[in-house]
Amino acid sequence: MLATILHAPGEVRCDEVAEPTILKPTDAIIRLSASCICGSDLWPYRGLNEVNGPRAMGHEYCGIVEEVGSAVTTVRPGQFVVGSFCLSDNTCPHCRFGFQSSCEQREFMTGAQAPLARVPLADGTLVATAALPSDDLIPSLLATSDVLGTGWFAADAAGVQEGSTAVVVGDGAVGLMGVLSAKQMGAERIIIMSRHKTRQDVALEFGATDIVSERGEDGVALIKKLTGGVGADSVLECVGTQESMMQALNCTRPGGKIGFVGVPHGVQFDGRDLFLQQKSLLGGPAPVRRYLPYLMDLVLDRTINPGKVFDLEVPLADVAEGYSAMDERRAIKTLLRV
Amino acid sequence: MLATILHAPGEVRCDEVAEPTILKPTDAIIRLSASCICGSDLWPYRGLNEVNGPRAMGHEYCGIVEEVGSAVTTVRPGQFVVGSFCLSDNTCPHCRFGFQSSCEQREFMTGAQAPLARVPLADGTLVATAALPSDDLIPSLLATSDVLGTGWFAADAAGVQEGSTAVVVGDGAVGLMGVLSAKQMGAERIIIMSRHKTRQDVALEFGATDIVSERGEDGVALIKKLTGGVGADSVLECVGTQESMMQALNCTRPGGKIGFVGVPHGVQFDGRDLFLQQKSLLGGPAPVRRYLPYLMDLVLDRTINPGKVFDLEVPLADVAEGYSAMDERRAIKTLLRV
Repeated sequence: MLATILHAPGEVRCDEVAEPTILKPTDAIIRLSASCICGSDLWPYRGLNEVNGPRAMGHEYCGIVEEVGSAVTTVRPGQFVVGSFCLSDNTCPHCRFGFQSSCEQREFMTGAQAPLARVPLADGTLVATAALPSDDLIPSLLATSDVLGTGWFAADAAGVQEGSTAVVVGDGAVGLMGVLSAKQMGAERIIIMSRHKTRQDVALEFGATDIVSERGEDGVALIKKLTGGVGADSVLECVGTQESMMQALNCTRPGGKIGFVGVPHGVQFDGRDLFLQQKSLLGGPAPVRRYLPYLMDLVLDRTINPGKVFDLEVPLADVAEGYSAMDERRAIKTLLRV
Repeated sequence: MLATILHAPGEVRCDEVAEPTILKPTDAIIRLSASCICGSDLWPYRGLNEVNGPRAMGHEYCGIVEEVGSAVTTVRPGQFVVGSFCLSDNTCPHCRFGFQSSCEQREFMTGAQAPLARVPLADGTLVATAALPSDDLIPSLLATSDVLGTGWFAADAAGVQEGSTAVVVGDGAVGLMGVLSAKQMGAERIIIMSRHKTRQDVALEFGATDIVSERGEDGVALIKKLTGGVGADSVLECVGTQESMMQALNCTRPGGKIGFVGVPHGVQFDGRDLFLQQKSLLGGPAPVRRYLPYLMDLVLDRTINPGKVFDLEVPLADVAEGYSAMDERRAIKTLLRV
């Protein structure tokens, strides 16, 4: 089959590879209904993470179970499933506390930018729907696998609740999902920091009430002004740079919460500064599995439409164009037809 | 009157100074029932914070109102009051959110190691009792002003609740108050990291269930072992060094919470490490005013006895001995008879 391989920074293409097979009794093989490119795939693509030899790309997935290992009991061939980018047993203490992304057996999904993929820890990781979903729901179900689950975790970690004022730092796909999540959690005011018209439009559609295009100190000053000098209750940091993190920290009110889901690159916090600012911090790879059944239901009953975040769709063979469109910010997020 | 003045590192004594007077209509003057020395007073005493000229010491206080400014309405001369080391108006947005230690008008109390003290923002800061408390309750009421309120905030920020496993890093007075607080909040297991017999004994009396005398990686390994390899739900960091903070971080379970109240000295957090560890952080100067009425009630009805943390009592004139006893760890906390 054809699968997406990153060979070196900037060098991504479909190569002919062997179809995946069951390697462990806890594995499942799924036939993907669609796949996509993640903002985090751009880190190695841009050479900002090391690339040591060819890497099978793709960790967001949904599709039909093709085959299961002998130990798998909760899903069976023919079912439609979604799984998290973090593979987890869903039974260890960390999983039971709802932090499946720190599962004692955690692995990270790979190789999902392809028509078939092997999913380890299938029982703990995969959630099946009662019936096969209609085709138009596939992009939104695919989104629950990572980008929506990650935005949701950011909003949850930031403590968004009924009536909150939330700020979303970053207008990438995760930031936009953060807007949608904050809206679902009842935020009264959702301010997105964005300077791109197409992304602002999606943010407004997802529930943003204010747009701040200034960055750094100017951006913080504007948010302070919009919040009566107080700062925001909840801030979703969806970028991962020192600048974006300081922006997030400085526009939170004392006692407010920051949920950070942008993978930090070169970010440092000064302990004394955190102490004096009195702001709560929680971040990490999102425990998507905790939210998955709920988020899939929101999609299936058409309460939310996170699939709108895909503004480019290409066949798998054109994956390179999908990456470069995201890299050049011509696309928010690329869906791959597999 | 005689009041405690720090002239230079190691040089603290009682000097004759003018009695305080009302400077603003929102001030009150109180006659202290007792005063005490705080662990944080040791930072400048040890020369670890800069000392620029003589400094009037003391920020923990309780006593009888002597005089109030013309704008003060909630307390009156003759009442017994306790106030927080953070002076706050208790009406600004941050105060209403329960973060009085970030009050828009915040000041820090000074000059309370003396028989009389001026308390700015008296209406927002002071809490009066219904009647004059009996003398034996004075040490415990004094403790609510800072050391207990700070330990309580550490436990609250660390999310201690019924059934939690809590770890307290640091066996100073604040750490011991953290043990008492975690116990009150229903923690099932309270592990204190301590290597001093006298402090271990007080910790056990306050509700500690386990003592870990190892530090660093060995200490973390032992706590992991005590918690079945999982880590603690809640960790109270009550020291403020890089070593103690990393100890706190590393013995928390993923998704667990760290409340840090030791003033950070040279502490840095790596963003990627925080992200991968998935642990929640909240610290700062404790919003004692939020807890004060509740904590004073717990003392008045004799549910708790935080005053036990004072294991040395000296007259104000011997304040230098009080400092050196704490500096040399001969005393946990010194009460000053004023």
